[in-house]
Amino acid sequence: MYEIMRFITCIKELDREAMNKAQQKIDGLVKPPGSLGKLEEIAIVLSGISGEVAYDTRKRCVIIMSADNGVVEEGIAAAPQAVTHMMTLSFVRGITGAAVLAKQFNADLVVVDVGVNADIYHPLIKNKKIRKSTWNIAQQDAMTRDEAENAILAGIETAIEAVNDGYTMLGAGEMGIGNTTTSSAVLCALTGIPAEQVAGKGAGLKEEAYQHKIDVIKTALNNNKPDPDDPIGVLSKVGGFDIAAMAGLYIGGAYMRVPVVIDGFISIVAALVASRISPAAKNYMIASHASYEQGFPYAAQALGIEPCLNMKMRLGEGSGCPLMFAVIDAACAIMRDMGTFEQACIGEEYLNKVKEGDNFTV
Amino acid sequence: MYEIMRFITCIKELDREAMNKAQQKIDGLVKPPGSLGKLEEIAIVLSGISGEVAYDTRKRCVIIMSADNGVVEEGIAAAPQAVTHMMTLSFVRGITGAAVLAKQFNADLVVVDVGVNADIYHPLIKNKKIRKSTWNIAQQDAMTRDEAENAILAGIETAIEAVNDGYTMLGAGEMGIGNTTTSSAVLCALTGIPAEQVAGKGAGLKEEAYQHKIDVIKTALNNNKPDPDDPIGVLSKVGGFDIAAMAGLYIGGAYMRVPVVIDGFISIVAALVASRISPAAKNYMIASHASYEQGFPYAAQALGIEPCLNMKMRLGEGSGCPLMFAVIDAACAIMRDMGTFEQACIGEEYLNKVKEGDNFTV
Repeated sequence: MYEIMRFITCIKELDREAMNKAQQKIDGLVKPPGSLGKLEEIAIVLSGISGEVAYDTRKRCVIIMSADNGVVEEGIAAAPQAVTHMMTLSFVRGITGAAVLAKQFNADLVVVDVGVNADIYHPLIKNKKIRKSTWNIAQQDAMTRDEAENAILAGIETAIEAVNDGYTMLGAGEMGIGNTTTSSAVLCALTGIPAEQVAGKGAGLKEEAYQHKIDVIKTALNNNKPDPDDPIGVLSKVGGFDIAAMAGLYIGGAYMRVPVVIDGFISIVAALVASRISPAAKNYMIASHASYEQGFPYAAQALGIEPCLNMKMRLGEGSGCPLMFAVIDAACAIMRDMGTFEQACIGEEYLNKVKEGDNFTV
Repeated sequence: MYEIMRFITCIKELDREAMNKAQQKIDGLVKPPGSLGKLEEIAIVLSGISGEVAYDTRKRCVIIMSADNGVVEEGIAAAPQAVTHMMTLSFVRGITGAAVLAKQFNADLVVVDVGVNADIYHPLIKNKKIRKSTWNIAQQDAMTRDEAENAILAGIETAIEAVNDGYTMLGAGEMGIGNTTTSSAVLCALTGIPAEQVAGKGAGLKEEAYQHKIDVIKTALNNNKPDPDDPIGVLSKVGGFDIAAMAGLYIGGAYMRVPVVIDGFISIVAALVASRISPAAKNYMIASHASYEQGFPYAAQALGIEPCLNMKMRLGEGSGCPLMFAVIDAACAIMRDMGTFEQACIGEEYLNKVKEGDNFTV
């Protein structure tokens, strides 16, 4: 824990002075006040993160934490565990959804093995493996506390390496068969929301299998007794290496003062864990899309974050991040390229009315 | 009307065979079925529009219809009418929100004067002016029926020219001080929803001015008596040249078989008008963002369309279209670049379970 604390205590609050300057700049741009909505909010947050009015997001990456989950023994996922391995290799071949979308939006993929249940030796896959697969949470804790801390540290380390490699914006993705089950258990543990509400049917999960998934989550919570006030303990008891490493990514991004974009359900549960470990890290998170996975809205509410995109996506892999990178690019573009009222030759009469807060419906 | 009918009768239904082929292709891609949500839906619609499985959206433009509204005499907009003129010139100088966002997402701007209350001679602004400004709808009809038809035709013509210039995706934007008032009136006329619900306060409209705006809309509806079953009549009685020309854009885009992206409130009201004139044109429309303008959800519901983006934007100018272009690019990218299960070496066991519709929560 000392190792993690070392990073957490260095996370800075957002730079209010830079945010005020950004707000002033935005208020002079040729548009009704506030009319660019979340683009303005994002631009201001980026100023708070960086301490600069302008921000450059051109070099960015989606980081995919791959790991296996022992709970797949319980039959809560139709896909065999080997799919985690195969998909991890497919990311670097560029043929998966997240890989295609990352390329489309000029983002790199950083693929990290934090616990895939196979030996992976690949020059393009970072080896930060804690162990091959967690244990089955329906039978015992997922991992030891040391392993949970080491997985978080692996995420922090990955974020630091990425920023040192020049990336100024990160996305938090994952791959791990069975990880909607572990994420649901973590969300239940942290919020007290019952498993029935949080667990999803996925794509066409039959009623019987769905009930079994809920039972498995309940069993894990009852047996392992995670303490909601101990987020690292929650990870070790009912989580996964992927979730822990992603929580570390958010903390590491905040430590390095770069925005970290949240993807879908597993990604936002990891963000919630990170915010419980370090509330200041939350300021560096940017939501992307509202995942179609059933538990997503509960996690978003618990985190107090509202996504811009409503794509009915539930792929994971960090696939929502590149779309949000484009939106964040847009926020940077308005700060960089828009003109002022004066440049548009729109005169005093108008500006005075704006200042009076008069009718601005044009 | 004969002129407009000539185009409407040529609008094709979506190509079901191409859509089925696109669906088949999507079902073979390496991801849980349906997990890319609206990206899949968009890809299929593009196939239906084009008749091809793949679609290329790289050459695209936002078309801005600029026009003035006589109703500004009533004091329903704080901005002086001259702002329409100044902003129209600012578009081609690249300093407005829509111009910056278009550039960011590799889209061109096509600026069209359909009724600005000034003489505009500019090599980069298309002159399709019907007349300088409409009349005041609180006093009389906005325009004659011939003018309404000519404005629609100007929009159709603009879409045809754009497609002939090589654009494969259009966005429908506008500029016109006072046009949330006219759009609200058109929406009320078409749907019967009361003005109180539809009219927005904009940014900081004071209660008194807001009430006056509602009264002006009610007066226009009561005096001019638009018939909800006559959408062109509605345009002529309480609309504007901008709205009419945008309605023409949607019709012209459908006629030329290219998607037309809807922007905010005025844009979606024009889309609703177009769909009432030609229901088949609706298949070619793609929503972008949920405008923060109060009336937007009513128009979206009437049109039966749900946007992907929730940006709290209410700028207009077509500023939401470039963001949506990026999302549509993403839909094209998955069709073009994603691999199959076979390519990912994910075997029979998995695929059979998928086919059985078994648990797919991975």
